[in-house]
Amino acid sequence: MYSEIKVGILGLGTVGSKVAEELIERNEYHSAKSGNNSHLSLKKILVKSLNKERSYKVPTELLTENENDILNDPDISIIIEVIGGEEPARTYIEKSLNAGKNVITANKEVIAKHGKELKKIAVNADKQLLFEASVGGGIPIIQPLINDLAANDITAIRAIINGTTNYILTKMSQENMDFTEALDEAKSLGYAEADPTNDIEGIDAAYKISILASLAFGVDVKPENIYVEGITKLTSKDFRYAKELGYEIKLLAIARKDFSGNLQIKVHPALVDKESELASISGPDNAIEFTGDLVGHVTFSGPGAGPNPTTSAILSDLILITRGNFPSSYKINNDLLATPVLLPMESVECRYYLLLTTIDQPGVLAKIGTIFKKNGISISAVIQKDTQVSKGTAELVITTHTATENSIQVAINEFKGIDLIDSIKSIIRIEDN
Amino acid sequence: MYSEIKVGILGLGTVGSKVAEELIERNEYHSAKSGNNSHLSLKKILVKSLNKERSYKVPTELLTENENDILNDPDISIIIEVIGGEEPARTYIEKSLNAGKNVITANKEVIAKHGKELKKIAVNADKQLLFEASVGGGIPIIQPLINDLAANDITAIRAIINGTTNYILTKMSQENMDFTEALDEAKSLGYAEADPTNDIEGIDAAYKISILASLAFGVDVKPENIYVEGITKLTSKDFRYAKELGYEIKLLAIARKDFSGNLQIKVHPALVDKESELASISGPDNAIEFTGDLVGHVTFSGPGAGPNPTTSAILSDLILITRGNFPSSYKINNDLLATPVLLPMESVECRYYLLLTTIDQPGVLAKIGTIFKKNGISISAVIQKDTQVSKGTAELVITTHTATENSIQVAINEFKGIDLIDSIKSIIRIEDN
Repeated sequence: MYSEIKVGILGLGTVGSKVAEELIERNEYHSAKSGNNSHLSLKKILVKSLNKERSYKVPTELLTENENDILNDPDISIIIEVIGGEEPARTYIEKSLNAGKNVITANKEVIAKHGKELKKIAVNADKQLLFEASVGGGIPIIQPLINDLAANDITAIRAIINGTTNYILTKMSQENMDFTEALDEAKSLGYAEADPTNDIEGIDAAYKISILASLAFGVDVKPENIYVEGITKLTSKDFRYAKELGYEIKLLAIARKDFSGNLQIKVHPALVDKESELASISGPDNAIEFTGDLVGHVTFSGPGAGPNPTTSAILSDLILITRGNFPSSYKINNDLLATPVLLPMESVECRYYLLLTTIDQPGVLAKIGTIFKKNGISISAVIQKDTQVSKGTAELVITTHTATENSIQVAINEFKGIDLIDSIKSIIRIEDN
Repeated sequence: MYSEIKVGILGLGTVGSKVAEELIERNEYHSAKSGNNSHLSLKKILVKSLNKERSYKVPTELLTENENDILNDPDISIIIEVIGGEEPARTYIEKSLNAGKNVITANKEVIAKHGKELKKIAVNADKQLLFEASVGGGIPIIQPLINDLAANDITAIRAIINGTTNYILTKMSQENMDFTEALDEAKSLGYAEADPTNDIEGIDAAYKISILASLAFGVDVKPENIYVEGITKLTSKDFRYAKELGYEIKLLAIARKDFSGNLQIKVHPALVDKESELASISGPDNAIEFTGDLVGHVTFSGPGAGPNPTTSAILSDLILITRGNFPSSYKINNDLLATPVLLPMESVECRYYLLLTTIDQPGVLAKIGTIFKKNGISISAVIQKDTQVSKGTAELVITTHTATENSIQVAINEFKGIDLIDSIKSIIRIEDN
């Protein structure tokens, strides 16, 4: 006596292939973990081409090139969407929910851009829309945030949520590679795509932090409203000086709520204490730190991408649905979804690391000090580096105390008018614990 | 239109007081997060003495010295047990479940020793027994393991799950304190109890790893079957030499399953790579790393104790029950509970760090090498330290490649018969990643 749960998969790339393989080759194993004596049965997989060569050979009778064979099949009760990208994935998810199917997706772009609307459709259809795999690969993040930290008022999220950039930054830090060299290595190892723009420019991280911030703060954060800065301008010199000051450089996605409920949400490279847990996250790993009023800081870390970890999250979502564990949790979060009040980036406060090339003459520091003072910025530390006697130049590494983004930008602009300052090489924010 | 959910608390120590305060002072906040339009209502709290002075003043009409006022009250549907210790907590939990109440407990000792039996009672009564707070304080561990890693075959757990000892070891490492000095500081700051035996001897960690191993491997691991070694013999010298070799020293709780399904479960101090995430866990924090066949390594870290984090876990469990999220998940785990096949400690393999005092004469190393070779142990590194010309002694730090516990113990015994070896100061296991 068991109930057959028929599953359809949309997409058969690396993730879809692994999900299919698990559901076929280890069917008894996963079915045994499912609730209510249910038996998982993979019925159909949507592919672009029936004839493509694939590393895992799915029985051909399971494949179709027509999405309606899955979306219109009343026997299929759970859809796993692993096509990726905005369309047609969004449309298929919407159609699936409207057809009374539960949906599991790994699609951060669709959830970040259309999560609120799709959740509303899911609630009206009384179906589940689960997306554990959309952030942090196999690391449990979404469910622990919604359920196991439910008693907390979440006030901050700080996260390394892009494996490609963390791999590149690890190489730049540990092996003194420059950005291009590290990117090339990441590509050759499959950690970066042929067109790495979404990763290295921070767009992928912005999708993910918008999903987390929406859940944590009960608002609807759209990714286009997030301040995003990528890692392409970082140099090996920045890593060397950061280390001397006791820091590592990481691409952080940050979301904070202040006492008035204003939010700041941003993605940018940041100096983090080299003894901190975030600094210890190396290679393609991810880490997500939540701050809650009761719990304090908790951090979840592990592999942020890859077919196996992503399959772990997708199949765990599938098992959860069969166990019937989700009658109301996301509804609650959805009911609260309000439009967020986002602090403009100019008003966001931070500490800063600056690297300047100056003419090696008396009076430079005095000049810099005067401009900082005028803008209400106080200096934390100054180190003079690499004095080039022949050229008559020197490098100044400056760290500041907390200042607003606006005041730093004004000061930087004033520096540009000073002959003694040759160039402003780097401006990187500092994230203390 | 809402349903009133009446809650009883057993115990009003630091944790009970914080739970009561949250349920009273922030009732609307927590009720709003609860599912099914439920409203949380704290009805009664069991205390030892009505007249004790407490930092948070609970209205006296909520207090009782008679447990039956709570256990026999048919209006109370959820019991929060925060008395701690084995009895009467175990009896109260059993009575509550048999009286048809859901139970939330922070009690690692009761769950470690009697979890299997109590879960059976809960299943038969069709009630929930949740214990997220019993391991890792406020860090979500239990639910993520059961639900969000459900698709994985868990093969290993490595955990820092005792805040007291991690605080002491952090002080010994960072400030060169000796054990007694660090313990005294931990006591004065409230991180260690007046009688710290359970913490420093590893017993508390054994309770917690037995809970995690039982859930992860679907077996019933009793804490008395776990190999346990505390931190009392570690010296500041061990920390110094460990650092020179690239390690930190942590008290680890470890559970592993090999390909034949044999388990090794143990608690002992271990050298861990100083660049690793576990090494970065400092002060009273905890970290739990799971290895799963699909996900690889994932780590959960944060505050392992304290009234606020523990209350976070308890109230999140409470909210979960009101949301009705748990119809079958722990039943599944419970159904699988089998008696584990535990590998005897003699057969467990590990790398080792040894610190010996020897007579500074030629032939010592040759002698040691011969004994190791006879026992199938190969040396990874040797460093001679602290040669005392006046005494004619030297210290030898030796690290080995993987060897069985038995072979190391035999070799150590043979060392004792050698005149050139003055004393065996330390034997610490090495946990590589």
